[in-house]
This record gives sequence, C-alpha cells and structure tokens, in this order.
Amino acid sequence: MEDKSQKEHHKYAADIDSISKAQTLIRPYVNITPVLSSETLNLIAGKSLFFKCECFQKGGAFKFRGASNAIFSLNDEQAAKGVVTHSSGNHAAALALAAKLRGIPAYIVIPKNAPKCKVENVKRYGGQVIWSEANMQSREETANKGTLSLEFLDQVPHLDTLIVPISGGGLISGVAIGAKSINPAIRVLAAEPKGADDAAQSKASDKEIVEAMRYCYEVLKVAIEPSGAIGLAAVLSDSFKRNPASKDTRNIGIVLSGGNVDLGVLWESLNNR
Amino acid sequence: MEDKSQKEHHKYAADIDSISKAQTLIRPYVNITPVLSSETLNLIAGKSLFFKCECFQKGGAFKFRGASNAIFSLNDEQAAKGVVTHSSGNHAAALALAAKLRGIPAYIVIPKNAPKCKVENVKRYGGQVIWSEANMQSREETANKGTLSLEFLDQVPHLDTLIVPISGGGLISGVAIGAKSINPAIRVLAAEPKGADDAAQSKASDKEIVEAMRYCYEVLKVAIEPSGAIGLAAVLSDSFKRNPASKDTRNIGIVLSGGNVDLGVLWESLNNR
Repeated sequence: MEDKSQKEHHKYAADIDSISKAQTLIRPYVNITPVLSSETLNLIAGKSLFFKCECFQKGGAFKFRGASNAIFSLNDEQAAKGVVTHSSGNHAAALALAAKLRGIPAYIVIPKNAPKCKVENVKRYGGQVIWSEANMQSREETANKGTLSLEFLDQVPHLDTLIVPISGGGLISGVAIGAKSINPAIRVLAAEPKGADDAAQSKASDKEIVEAMRYCYEVLKVAIEPSGAIGLAAVLSDSFKRNPASKDTRNIGIVLSGGNVDLGVLWESLNNR
Repeated sequence: MEDKSQKEHHKYAADIDSISKAQTLIRPYVNITPVLSSETLNLIAGKSLFFKCECFQKGGAFKFRGASNAIFSLNDEQAAKGVVTHSSGNHAAALALAAKLRGIPAYIVIPKNAPKCKVENVKRYGGQVIWSEANMQSREETANKGTLSLEFLDQVPHLDTLIVPISGGGLISGVAIGAKSINPAIRVLAAEPKGADDAAQSKASDKEIVEAMRYCYEVLKVAIEPSGAIGLAAVLSDSFKRNPASKDTRNIGIVLSGGNVDLGVLWESLNNR
C-alpha cells in the first residue's frame, strides 16, 4: 500500500542533493550573479553587508533558475508540446525566456493587473500571453532557489546571516536548505513588507522599502524592484536594530531578488514618501 | 643639457610597465568590477556587448583607480600634509575617499555649478569643500586608467573592440595603451555626445544618450550617469551602424564609467526626450 503522505513529502522537499543536481543542470544557462558591497551602506547599517544581485540574472530576477531547470529537465517529447504557467510577474518572463532558449513554445496566463514591464518582458522573450481575471500563483520547486545560496556562500564564505524577501514563495525555503547544508550555524531571516500583499511586488507600500530602493539606486547603483529591496529595508529598520538577535549578526548576505520595475513606478514611489 | 620635450613626454606617458605597477599598488583598495551582458541588448545592437561596470567602483566611478594610486604613492611625510585637487565631479569624491582610507585630510576645490550628488559624495567621504567660480579640470595620470583595460581583457579575453567615453580626459588614452599592450589588434573607439560640453557630464543633452540610459536601467538594471551611457549610445547609433569599420566588430567591450546621478536629474532627462 502506498503511503501518500510520504510521497507528497518527497514531491515538495528539497535537500542538498536535489539542489546540487539542479545547479549542475542549470549551470550552462544561468548567470553567476555578482556580489556587491558598499562601505557607505556598511556604515549606515553598522554591519558588513553583501548584496547578491539576482536582478542581473537572465530575465531580471532569480526566477530564471527555476524556469531553466523546469524547461531543460523535460525530455524531447514533453518539450515539443510547449509549456504553460500562470504568473503575474518574474516567473512568467523567466519561463518564456527559458522556453525560447530551448526553442519550444510557452503559453503564459497573466492576470490583467500585472505590471506592464513584466508583461513586456514575456512578449520580448516570445511568450504567448493569455489574459486572466484572477491573480493565481504557480507553484515552483524549491531546489532551484537553493542554487542561489550555494553560489552566494561560495562567493562570500564567511556570511553568518542571510536575509531573503519572503515574496514569491519558496525562495526562502530553498535558500535556507541550501545555506544550512553548507553552514548549519547560518541564520536565515525572512523579510516582508509591513503592508504585505501582491501590490507590494510592483509598487512600494512602505516608507522603509522606498528608502532602501533609493539606497540601492544612488549608492549601490543597482536598479531593483520594491520587493527586491525588502532585505535591505529589514536590516536598516529600527525593529531589526532593537532585536537582541541582531547583535550576533555581523556579515549579512542580502538577496536582491529582482530588478524588473517601470521607471515611472519607481519615480512615483520615491516622490510619494 | 636637459631635453625638456623628452622630460615632458616622459612625465605624461603611460606604458604597460607603469600600468602594471599601478595595478599592483591599487589592488588592495579598488573593487574588481563585474562585467555584465544582456541578450536583449545584443539583439538590439546586432553585436555581443560586454559592459564593464565601473559604476560599481568605490566612489561610484573609475576615477577611484587614479585617486587611490595618487594617495597610496605618497610617502608618510608627504601624506601627512594632506592632498588638494580641483574637480567638478567624480575625481573629487574618489580623492576624498582614498584620503579617508589613508587617514589624511583632502581639500577639494569645487565649482559652484557641480552636481549636488557629487558634492554630497565628497562630504560623505570627509572631504573639505572649498567653492570656486571657474570650472577647472585637474590633470590625472593615464597609467591608472590602463588598469581598467587589463582587468577587462582578463575577464573577457576575446574582445575585439573597446568603446570608451571621451569625457573626463585621459580614460581613453590609458585604456588604449593597456588594451593594445595585451592585444595589439584591438580597436579602441572614443565615444562623445553630439553636443559635447561640461553640462553633458551631469545632464543628458542628447536623445541617443537618454535612450541608452533607459536601456541601462531597465534592461541591464544598472544605474549610470549620462556620461557613463555614451559608449552604449555610440554602439546603437545610426552613424556607427553605417560606418564600414563597424562590420569588423563583433565582441565589443563598453566601459560604463560612472553611476553618480541624482534620480531627479535622471527622471527629468527621461521625460524631456
């Protein structure tokens, strides 16, 4: 008799083996993204900060890791049929781009309220857009996101803390499994905006995030979307500084998860502070 | 009897030995800046483009290479007296930062019309600002800028062409000497805006440059100043595409020379197209 709960567990779980396997499979397709740091921001935060720039990933966000794994794991027969997903954002563009690289069609179901620049990305990569009413999130495997932390700890081995935006779902779990398999003592913190909802992904809804975005643009010189700035906003927040646990953190890795933002939206956010 | 013209020549010349010496001296202080590329921009340009991101250099521009060499070449007695320069822009901030790292005072003469964000950088790095009326450029050694091309060709050895903004003076000569000493066949092209004047350094004055800035922000996710975008603008221009010499170029290195821009100035530029 089959133990269904076991099977379900297996289906969703990620471990270091599956992460390493994913890393090998996606290596020819993904960018190894640079890690940036800034003495100015270190002074402001009172910590050593290391920014993993997944906004420089193909498609402009970490989502391409999962999308390329999904596309290049298909056998030829499966691939020939094309792929379909529903996503309001970076996953849609990432899947369209990965499908284009393999030369297969991608059908992307997109809610009507999706950010314009993300829809443009889908079209640019040849994805076929199908509009929908609802805002549904597609489930993605967590193993792919673990590849991000393997790469990050290879670049900055002495990180004691990782801060990951909770948006998008799954990034934090994959990153945590990957990071802790290399350094079990590492602290993995999830950051989310105070007024967390889908809107926060394309429009800043929180003063601290807008300030963090401004630092990213003006000091780091990196263009990021609001959800990408949540990690820095968390480190600079009063609640983090007041938290006793923050005293044990010294070398903090921050994932800048994506950079797909309309300049118009950015400007509006910065001026509505 | 002294041959003065010889001496003058020696004083200004840079060769691969002086570039290598500069590279060794500045290595502990400068960032090795990443090289980015984008399939989208490759498609638009019809070439393979490689962007050397000196906007991620300390102080936000390539000028820190020269400034750190100048500061750390001083003996202790010279250094104790502090340093002085006059500059309207990135060199001022770079020298202030290098002086701060060595723990010596920097006095920076700045023209009253200098961009606000660059003056802020000087102050942030502890530079002591002295205002002036005239806009004078300080002379800098070319050897330091050659370190940029050594690093770039080490990262992307198969470059056949380098495009360098002519602004700032000296960058192009240093880069050319460094690059040609490694690959004598490499083509080094200078890019300058159509309405070239000092204002172009802080404010876009040219439609093609504004478009290139938008590509840098929205596609590369890199925040750059107008003068930093001139190389990309040149590659995408009709006059480059019509030039017979452009047919021989395939792998083009573009130096994004600096990223110090007020977001307000950027926005104004993008909307005045």
